[in-house]
Amino acid sequence: MRNVVVRNIDRVDPAIIKGLSEQGTATVHEAQQRSGLMLPYMRPIYPGSRIAGSAVTALTHPGDNWMLHVIPEIAQPGDIAVIGLSSENTDGMFGDLLATSYRAQGILGLVIDAGCRDVADLTEMAFPVWSRAISAKGTVKATVGSVNLPIVCAGTQVNPGDVIVADDDGVVVVPRALAAAVYEAGRVREANETEKRKRLAAGELGLDMYDMRTPLEKAGLVYVDKPSGADE
Amino acid sequence: MRNVVVRNIDRVDPAIIKGLSEQGTATVHEAQQRSGLMLPYMRPIYPGSRIAGSAVTALTHPGDNWMLHVIPEIAQPGDIAVIGLSSENTDGMFGDLLATSYRAQGILGLVIDAGCRDVADLTEMAFPVWSRAISAKGTVKATVGSVNLPIVCAGTQVNPGDVIVADDDGVVVVPRALAAAVYEAGRVREANETEKRKRLAAGELGLDMYDMRTPLEKAGLVYVDKPSGADE
Amino acid sequence: MRNVVVRNIDRVDPAIIKGLSEQGTATVHEAQQRSGLMLPYMRPIYPGSRIAGSAVTALTHPGDNWMLHVIPEIAQPGDIAVIGLSSENTDGMFGDLLATSYRAQGILGLVIDAGCRDVADLTEMAFPVWSRAISAKGTVKATVGSVNLPIVCAGTQVNPGDVIVADDDGVVVVPRALAAAVYEAGRVREANETEKRKRLAAGELGLDMYDMRTPLEKAGLVYVDKPSGADE
Amino acid sequence: MRNVVVRNIDRVDPAIIKGLSEQGTATVHEAQQRSGLMLPYMRPIYPGSRIAGSAVTALTHPGDNWMLHVIPEIAQPGDIAVIGLSSENTDGMFGDLLATSYRAQGILGLVIDAGCRDVADLTEMAFPVWSRAISAKGTVKATVGSVNLPIVCAGTQVNPGDVIVADDDGVVVVPRALAAAVYEAGRVREANETEKRKRLAAGELGLDMYDMRTPLEKAGLVYVDKPSGADE
Amino acid sequence: MRNVVVRNIDRVDPAIIKGLSEQGTATVHEAQQRSGLMLPYMRPIYPGSRIAGSAVTALTHPGDNWMLHVIPEIAQPGDIAVIGLSSENTDGMFGDLLATSYRAQGILGLVIDAGCRDVADLTEMAFPVWSRAISAKGTVKATVGSVNLPIVCAGTQVNPGDVIVADDDGVVVVPRALAAAVYEAGRVREANETEKRKRLAAGELGLDMYDMRTPLEKAGLVYVDKPSGADE
Amino acid sequence: MRNVVVRNIDRVDPAIIKGLSEQGTATVHEAQQRSGLMLPYMRPIYPGSRIAGSAVTALTHPGDNWMLHVIPEIAQPGDIAVIGLSSENTDGMFGDLLATSYRAQGILGLVIDAGCRDVADLTEMAFPVWSRAISAKGTVKATVGSVNLPIVCAGTQVNPGDVIVADDDGVVVVPRALAAAVYEAGRVREANETEKRKRLAAGELGLDMYDMRTPLEKAGLVYVDKPSGADE
Repeated sequence: MRNVVVRNIDRVDPAIIKGLSEQGTATVHEAQQRSGLMLPYMRPIYPGSRIAGSAVTALTHPGDNWMLHVIPEIAQPGDIAVIGLSSENTDGMFGDLLATSYRAQGILGLVIDAGCRDVADLTEMAFPVWSRAISAKGTVKATVGSVNLPIVCAGTQVNPGDVIVADDDGVVVVPRALAAAVYEAGRVREANETEKRKRLAAGELGLDMYDMRTPLEKAGLVYVDKPSGADE
Repeated sequence: MRNVVVRNIDRVDPAIIKGLSEQGTATVHEAQQRSGLMLPYMRPIYPGSRIAGSAVTALTHPGDNWMLHVIPEIAQPGDIAVIGLSSENTDGMFGDLLATSYRAQGILGLVIDAGCRDVADLTEMAFPVWSRAISAKGTVKATVGSVNLPIVCAGTQVNPGDVIVADDDGVVVVPRALAAAVYEAGRVREANETEKRKRLAAGELGLDMYDMRTPLEKAGLVYVDKPSGADE
Repeated sequence: MRNVVVRNIDRVDPAIIKGLSEQGTATVHEAQQRSGLMLPYMRPIYPGSRIAGSAVTALTHPGDNWMLHVIPEIAQPGDIAVIGLSSENTDGMFGDLLATSYRAQGILGLVIDAGCRDVADLTEMAFPVWSRAISAKGTVKATVGSVNLPIVCAGTQVNPGDVIVADDDGVVVVPRALAAAVYEAGRVREANETEKRKRLAAGELGLDMYDMRTPLEKAGLVYVDKPSGADE
Repeated sequence: MRNVVVRNIDRVDPAIIKGLSEQGTATVHEAQQRSGLMLPYMRPIYPGSRIAGSAVTALTHPGDNWMLHVIPEIAQPGDIAVIGLSSENTDGMFGDLLATSYRAQGILGLVIDAGCRDVADLTEMAFPVWSRAISAKGTVKATVGSVNLPIVCAGTQVNPGDVIVADDDGVVVVPRALAAAVYEAGRVREANETEKRKRLAAGELGLDMYDMRTPLEKAGLVYVDKPSGADE
Repeated sequence: MRNVVVRNIDRVDPAIIKGLSEQGTATVHEAQQRSGLMLPYMRPIYPGSRIAGSAVTALTHPGDNWMLHVIPEIAQPGDIAVIGLSSENTDGMFGDLLATSYRAQGILGLVIDAGCRDVADLTEMAFPVWSRAISAKGTVKATVGSVNLPIVCAGTQVNPGDVIVADDDGVVVVPRALAAAVYEAGRVREANETEKRKRLAAGELGLDMYDMRTPLEKAGLVYVDKPSGADE
Repeated sequence: MRNVVVRNIDRVDPAIIKGLSEQGTATVHEAQQRSGLMLPYMRPIYPGSRIAGSAVTALTHPGDNWMLHVIPEIAQPGDIAVIGLSSENTDGMFGDLLATSYRAQGILGLVIDAGCRDVADLTEMAFPVWSRAISAKGTVKATVGSVNLPIVCAGTQVNPGDVIVADDDGVVVVPRALAAAVYEAGRVREANETEKRKRLAAGELGLDMYDMRTPLEKAGLVYVDKPSGADE
């Protein structure tokens, strides 16, 4: 991996990004055929945030957060910083000073496949972070990585300019070229859900609403009134 | 494991279930001789819930939540759905649509040895879930499992109709035949605890209150004023 | 490890402890050259606490919390109990009765490399605990360990009388002999941070404020406007 | 869980057990509809063993191997000892002395949801063990559990007298009442496999042999000669 | 992720692949600037193999190995199958029947971010597999994924036609366009290592051979004859 | 932690070290009252080694193996290098070049709370390593740590000059001041074991040999011929 900073990246239309943010990760993930979700160890440092933005990426090394200082220079308002690691690490690479700088440049939040610290301050600032760990452990600035090259973060490929959607259910990556189509697919999905929610709340069974009885029977599911001895 | 749905199960007297709910998991677990507790990776998706109810069970396969749609048909108000997996999986098998359906049928909550999603919505609905993961990852409906056969969930055997008690400390399973006796044992335990709490709050030492000094000495514990060199 | 209880330990000046508490784990950890931090699996049972105090230590065995009952006798107000285990274990060794006793003796909180239970009660009492797990699982009182001998807790050496600082970012151990010096180093660090925070909030880049551009260039980092094909 | 030792259990016909042993875990697990497999963290302490026998079970507590000493009295030649734990633990509960005793009573091997030690000696003795860990850590004999009551071991229910099949692929549990039927299903399966192996070795594609082309097409799989831009 | 099978992929010159195989993962990983290594949970099912080949890739879903049956049709002799999963799963997706088919088509080995079974047979066949788990658990064939689209496997991006190098140290991915350059860089590295190995074996210190004394001193490392009290 | 290299350390009498090596980890660990064992994730890179020697220690940082190059200068023949990490890391910090250098200086083996690589070469050289991971991932030489100061390795305190005993069951640390006494306690233990092994092999039950029947009965264990319904 070359030690390169790419200054300019292409981004998705802000209206599409806003729409994806409103849909949230579960809808977006389904809308792009259940792909692009980061592993579930990525958790928000506090509950209740939902953001979407363009990915600016960095590859860093364990115990070293140097590249996180390069990001504010090349980010634009509305971006989300996404950090991949060259091997698994939980050190606290990001804290309230970096968050102050990121916010000053308009960065919306951070997704980092390592640790985060100063979480009480970040919670008070309402600066959202999704990380694999919370750790007070500080880091050095000794080895360069890259900024705005493709990375893998939490098991998922992220290209600079992809749309990141993050909320309490996790983090999903929408490839830049697919963002508009995914948003449209999500809208269709959401329209259906409102109707379904109403019918289910009224007591209709999903078995009937989704026409599952025949497929279940074909797949071999059998109803009995009481278990036979052999079933227990 | 046969692909069977058992329609009818025996349940415990609701008054006993209500009593177990008030005791909570720590008391109930002690009252049944420290057995029946699920592994501690099972965590509530939000803090502050305490529920108890009759287990309706399902066995599902990784990445497939089909059986979760069968449960509302055979559940009764006051039941808790308990889901076992045929192998370890963190996919988000349950979200706000299923929760809407479950609530409409009177199901009190969910215990699932896999993932859950839409946790912001579920928190707002106050529909409690204990799961091994939170994940936006959706699932297919392709392979049948079973409903209301015995399962293992998070390291613990669950038979349909067993009482599930779940709170911030975890999830405990009370075998149906033992529920009344466990409740009685828990009541004795709780009565003792109030008195003990008062004495400890007044500064009495547990060493004295529990008469531990002689057993500790017999077991070989020695008091010294300062460590000798060899002790460090 | 001998089965010994050491009654008397040396403690750090309370003013220094108070100062370390105000600095918090991230600052203190940096101030002692990034050492002494417990592994990040140690998490608070509820967010928002920050405490510091003198360590009273115990070594216990898996599934056995007997030594936790010995601690209140030898602790002093302002102490923090720190519990190491002879092998990995998540059982709920501490609950609301012990917390009542600990609080009656002036113990500020608990750091335990095992499980904790009654977390709803402890949250209501505002008795802070950092643990590796939450579990309703109870324990026996059958095997003695030691109290106030050196232990390892969550990957970190703890000697009785060391200062423990614990907050939402984790738990850091300050060796007793170094506490005053670490506090002073932390003060210098904090003074610098206020100034830095202001400049970063005003939009100054860390690259400039920390004079990183030349070192980054020397380390081989190259800026490009657009990725070449080979970089992707 | 009552502290009970059950002296007498029912066992499966030795001819069936021998047949299941020859089939191995993968075949047996498929033959009983992919159920009964322990979690894959259960690994043999050395490669190359394959055994089957009747389960004699014990429930033990973390750090305590007392019940393992009760097993030789109630076991019969051809049995396999299966040990469940009341909470997760890796201590070395079994070593060469116990193995000597187990072998003297005709016990074929051990399956333990905890640790094992003296593995060099056990390898030399060719006494096979499947465990979740290897650890020199010794244990106490302070708390009683049970022998020959149902247990959960590595995520799977085990009743005394069930058939245990264990080899390099893991450990599978066959309920006693189903053993004969599972064995027959396994024989059918094996007969088919020999023929299939021959055809595949000759270069026939599984796509053709299993008639998968139509189902794959119906499920939406599309063949293209080269990826389009959007597919990458 | 579209459900696509790409029939034709570009491959690297076999002479380069052979050279990378001889260099092994540690050299190749260093030669491409310490990038492209899969996470270390990927382990060989038996020790002593070293292979290199062109990646044919598949994306599969947890508990479903359908796509593994498609690979033999589009693979060429010298290829290595690399399987990514849509979420974490340890099921035994590959066994001796598939291995027979893969070998018949000239596939050299398998790298799978899930489980493998029949490991005794595979060892006897000398068919090498790197996997995250060994498990007898069988899988269904119900949901399609993709073949020869880019995937993430064990934390690393893999494009079809990339060179896979796998041995006892793990699995490294060399992007197709970089393979020749990486091979050359590896050759330089190896030449140096032979000379270094000789000098180190003769007792020369790395501190001298690598000229580390001055950099260590500049970085602040201090030699003392005995520890002072404060250092312990 | 100061960045210090301590040149001279005190070591234990070689005859005692040789004796501890012959006893092995399980005996030594019991002989020092079940203390000093590293966590069981520390595994040998190949089976069948047993070594003992004086610990020379280093503290290193994640992704950085610089301090491993300092060790050969201050080690003596018969020493074992023990490496602690400032946070969890699996990078391959040690390979065949360092092993060549270590062997040239008479170092017997390595215990490292991180990764190891070139394991095929190390196996051929018969240079034993106990590590938490095997990984081809290389490391930088950018940040200094310490050599021959006390460290924590795999959950256990190690002081320079302590005796390390390592075999297939794990790694145990014997404090220097206790080595002679532990060796004597181990001899007594071993003498007893030979006699016990003989009696157990002859079919005597441990229940009788260890006089366990009365304590088991007092502890509440009850024998029954068949399970009652309530026991299942």
